[in-house]
Amino acid sequence: MTINKADNIELDHGGGGQKSSELISLIRNVISDKGKWKNQMDDGATLKIGNQHLVFTTDAYIVDPIFFPGGDIGKIAVCGTINDLAMMGAVPQGLSLSMVIEEGFPMKDLLKISESIQKMSREAGVPIVTGDTKVLPKGKLDKIEITTAGVGLTKKIISNSGAKIGDVVISSGDLGEHTVALLSSRFNYKTKVVSDSKTLNKEMQAIAKYVHAAKDPTRGGLSANIIEIAEKSKAKIVLEEELLPYKKETFAIAGLLGIDVLSFASEGRFICAVSEKDAKKVLQILKKFNPEAKIIGHVEKGKGVFLKTVLGSLRPIEMPRGKLVPRIC
Amino acid sequence: MTINKADNIELDHGGGGQKSSELISLIRNVISDKGKWKNQMDDGATLKIGNQHLVFTTDAYIVDPIFFPGGDIGKIAVCGTINDLAMMGAVPQGLSLSMVIEEGFPMKDLLKISESIQKMSREAGVPIVTGDTKVLPKGKLDKIEITTAGVGLTKKIISNSGAKIGDVVISSGDLGEHTVALLSSRFNYKTKVVSDSKTLNKEMQAIAKYVHAAKDPTRGGLSANIIEIAEKSKAKIVLEEELLPYKKETFAIAGLLGIDVLSFASEGRFICAVSEKDAKKVLQILKKFNPEAKIIGHVEKGKGVFLKTVLGSLRPIEMPRGKLVPRIC
Repeated sequence: MTINKADNIELDHGGGGQKSSELISLIRNVISDKGKWKNQMDDGATLKIGNQHLVFTTDAYIVDPIFFPGGDIGKIAVCGTINDLAMMGAVPQGLSLSMVIEEGFPMKDLLKISESIQKMSREAGVPIVTGDTKVLPKGKLDKIEITTAGVGLTKKIISNSGAKIGDVVISSGDLGEHTVALLSSRFNYKTKVVSDSKTLNKEMQAIAKYVHAAKDPTRGGLSANIIEIAEKSKAKIVLEEELLPYKKETFAIAGLLGIDVLSFASEGRFICAVSEKDAKKVLQILKKFNPEAKIIGHVEKGKGVFLKTVLGSLRPIEMPRGKLVPRIC
Repeated sequence: MTINKADNIELDHGGGGQKSSELISLIRNVISDKGKWKNQMDDGATLKIGNQHLVFTTDAYIVDPIFFPGGDIGKIAVCGTINDLAMMGAVPQGLSLSMVIEEGFPMKDLLKISESIQKMSREAGVPIVTGDTKVLPKGKLDKIEITTAGVGLTKKIISNSGAKIGDVVISSGDLGEHTVALLSSRFNYKTKVVSDSKTLNKEMQAIAKYVHAAKDPTRGGLSANIIEIAEKSKAKIVLEEELLPYKKETFAIAGLLGIDVLSFASEGRFICAVSEKDAKKVLQILKKFNPEAKIIGHVEKGKGVFLKTVLGSLRPIEMPRGKLVPRIC
């Protein structure tokens, strides 16, 4: 499972599963120096400035199609980076926006994407403050690629290594609908489900003081992200099969295509670990944003992530390998 | 000269000249909200945190070829963003790195680029602290695209609007050699000139207290960047033809290809405006980094940028239009 120097890059190296993790580790080993920064293995890195922490993060977007039910590449480029900052407990301060565009790309589509960026940025109250624009010759890029980076500030960092034994795991809503929206537009499959993409900073700020660990299950879905929390928190997480946060239609399309629903991505949902005593309060707050918010599992002593079936047996959940839905973000 | 909604994106919209400026203005008009940020029209935007300013910037890199005499895409992706922070007077604190890679890209080239990123990051003392990696299917991207963003801190912001009447304009070294290196590898033209790419943060920090305005003449070259300083500083700048900071070989290849040498890019040089009384001290410091550093012109009352010929006449310098060398960064 290790990468060989003679290998070539494969699609799955970007899919958010096992191969992605390996490639990222390889690059990190070559490039990363800690310096004064902390939390570099989290959604963002942090730097102490005075009595607060600067949080810094980035994401590249190559979603296909660029316009899909419930959103477009501009919308998720804003949501994704704001949400990474929010998951760290930070108040997002501003985003950078870099667009690489294919020659011949229609100006009207660029304006539509720009308007969508503006809308999300204003809704979240996080301005786009700096940017870059490059153009590649026709045929050298598939339409448009967007990279956003973001900076946030917080006095208390939430790390995905902070889940504690006895915590409950909460999902802020039903998951995977971003992948459903993309698949339905790729395969012309009729569904009312639209992308769940939205900014999470207000939701997260409302419960931040209770949160021990949080992740937004984008690439790799619930399985990759809950495994990350369990591994980094050195704990075992048990999810209840009957509480899995997916709509019937989401299960249906996953079944139809033979893809593990646990790898389906969301672009506007998060999972978090909070202590049992705070769970009721947290759910009360989260339900104001989304009535689907619910407890989906528990943090226990041990290691690994398991699905407790309705019959009571434990099935291990593993990192998604190969055959992930490509270009979902 | 205004962009129409029915237009399509052209290569020159990314070239750093007139058309680039128009596209960037259009996008900025749709997207940008100031919020608490300042200097959004500069190399980076700034946000007051306590008694200092956070500087935030981003750049996308699509250089062709990705390996060229004197560097590669990884090297300039680090230099470019560090240099943008340095031009604002900031001490760079850390970079984000987002890579979009074409399926089938050789792992050994990715490692070579990663090592080059690490080398420049260590030389400059600026760690890469967060990142993202995505993969596009074969044929959907030309090899690799890199976007870096950077954060820096400073107590005194240097803006490119700060040039004062009576200032001298200094170039930190001969310009345009990055473009020469790229053209020579594209056209198999034999030259000893290699890319001038390097990080400028140490150089800039050594003279920051004297600098009124600074720009690194990357895309668009000396002409686009000196025009930006003149316009934003509401002043006229006169450059001396006999002091133009280019080597004979640079003039030669520009002449041979019929491209204005003033549009040739550098990735490790800057121009700055300092008061006449500080010029000697600044030059003394800069010459330790590069003996080619010299005064190339003056800031005067009025508007526009002019080239004073050896015969004493004034020729206006204009924004590069069309036919720019594409994909130089």
